[in-house]
Amino acid sequence: MTGLSLVQVERLSSLKDEVDAGLEALLDDAEVAGGGQVVAMARHVLMSGGKRLRPVLFMLSYDAAGGGDRDHVMPLALAFELIHTATLVHDDMNDDADERRGRQTLHLEAGPEKALIAGDWLFVQGFGLGGRYPERVVRLMADCCADIAVSEFKQLDHIDDLTTSPEDYLDIVRGKTAGPFAAGCQSAALLAGLTEPQALQFRIFGEELGIAFQLVDDLLDLRGSPDMGKPRGVDVAEGKMTLPLIHALTLSHGTDRATLAELLASFTEDRWDELMAILERSDSLHYVELLVDLHLERAANALRSAGSGPAADLMLGMLTEIGSRTR
Amino acid sequence: MTGLSLVQVERLSSLKDEVDAGLEALLDDAEVAGGGQVVAMARHVLMSGGKRLRPVLFMLSYDAAGGGDRDHVMPLALAFELIHTATLVHDDMNDDADERRGRQTLHLEAGPEKALIAGDWLFVQGFGLGGRYPERVVRLMADCCADIAVSEFKQLDHIDDLTTSPEDYLDIVRGKTAGPFAAGCQSAALLAGLTEPQALQFRIFGEELGIAFQLVDDLLDLRGSPDMGKPRGVDVAEGKMTLPLIHALTLSHGTDRATLAELLASFTEDRWDELMAILERSDSLHYVELLVDLHLERAANALRSAGSGPAADLMLGMLTEIGSRTR
Repeated sequence: MTGLSLVQVERLSSLKDEVDAGLEALLDDAEVAGGGQVVAMARHVLMSGGKRLRPVLFMLSYDAAGGGDRDHVMPLALAFELIHTATLVHDDMNDDADERRGRQTLHLEAGPEKALIAGDWLFVQGFGLGGRYPERVVRLMADCCADIAVSEFKQLDHIDDLTTSPEDYLDIVRGKTAGPFAAGCQSAALLAGLTEPQALQFRIFGEELGIAFQLVDDLLDLRGSPDMGKPRGVDVAEGKMTLPLIHALTLSHGTDRATLAELLASFTEDRWDELMAILERSDSLHYVELLVDLHLERAANALRSAGSGPAADLMLGMLTEIGSRTR
Repeated sequence: MTGLSLVQVERLSSLKDEVDAGLEALLDDAEVAGGGQVVAMARHVLMSGGKRLRPVLFMLSYDAAGGGDRDHVMPLALAFELIHTATLVHDDMNDDADERRGRQTLHLEAGPEKALIAGDWLFVQGFGLGGRYPERVVRLMADCCADIAVSEFKQLDHIDDLTTSPEDYLDIVRGKTAGPFAAGCQSAALLAGLTEPQALQFRIFGEELGIAFQLVDDLLDLRGSPDMGKPRGVDVAEGKMTLPLIHALTLSHGTDRATLAELLASFTEDRWDELMAILERSDSLHYVELLVDLHLERAANALRSAGSGPAADLMLGMLTEIGSRTR
């Protein structure tokens, strides 16, 4: 990681370890309670090297908002990670994905029936942890999960849809990716004792960061990313309308537009250079990079207005890290 | 309905109407909030004529436990109905069922991808309603949902397994069917202000009723039930090891045992009379009827020890109704 001080890098690493330990403890308890194979499957997917970006951000948000009791925010952080992982399991089923974090997906490993139920189990564990929090926080969790579902419907409806607009795209990203970041940061700030208007700035921070995060992910799908273990072109092959592609479809004309449409309809790896040449002519990757910077700046401004201290500084550093992943 | 007074029948009907109205209001709110198709699908399955046995029982439990504020228990009742319906949607996917309550199942109507997410949405709505309750009640909800998942794993492992024991069977039924009845009645009693030991009697009431309810369901699968809209022999055809079949496999010997095993391995409707003759010789339906009576009696005793008044009387009457469904 560049741009972060050694102390900051160590802080992130120690927060990640805390999250890992919290998840392990929860899984151990569930195993002792007789959870059997469903816990083993949950462990397989939960403990396979996630970056813990969400829970770490929520713990930092709590600190930056002036919260003083780590034990008070940890269950919230774990809850969101459990729910996030539940959506990954169900998403992988719907996408018929083969791999997740370098391991075989649950539905391939144990069949779709058990993967479906293991995902449900993860959801339930997440909401179970929410029981200690005020109704307001549970409502934020539930609303964000409902928005994920609504956005997934929209995403399913836009698979292979070449008329998908940038607005459709942002709508989906707001619900599916940015929403949980937003709800988690806002909830953490409320638990730290901030007022609603102050906590709203944390929500905006999370939402803007989440949008930037997804845009970076879209760029990495086209540029490749050896460190993520994610092969390039997966979204393209699946017919997912990412913003660079939507932008290129909007800006290209004549032969380029026709070729691009044909490429997206039935993509094969040997046509990669053709695809990239069209994206180059429409300057689509550069356009998305600018958008990333815009959303990261909005996130930073929101954070600066409501949070401070070493935790807030670290969160600002993380924004820079996210922005640098595609350069 | 026999055995219940006209006043009691009207009370049940009015409670059911309250539940229906509560669910409709929740769906309307979600629709206004932009839920779109996912809400339409949830409405399709939620409002297709469920009997509302669970939520009605939980509202009655609250009354029988001395609770005085209907608005305090209603969200709990709705939460359990939403979660129950979520499990039905996901179960139907796993069973590849064609119909639910006389309508096409969601995964056939809108595809497995959307049915999966619609089920998740229903789960989330259920837990969202739990936010207003004490951590203890949310824990009961979450634990019961986790137990459902664990039991569904066991059930999947026992499909077509002729060595399934009565203990395996009861273990699955306790987690999957009886657990939610138990957790809901116990939670309602706690919300009404009862102590833990008193509320435990409501838990036992719910659990014993739930077991009896499942056993009656098993019997109806073999006897048919015109009023349920459920064709006979569905469990048999699916390879579900219901207790009458497990009992018959245990008690039958020689030719009967071999024929029964063969029948269950590949059942066809034309062999129905053969199946029933074997069950008759092992007296399996009668055995399960006795078990139904035993569990209903246990339920009644638990309730009498902790609850009283017209609501408790009505709950006792409902036990009698459940017992009479197979006679």
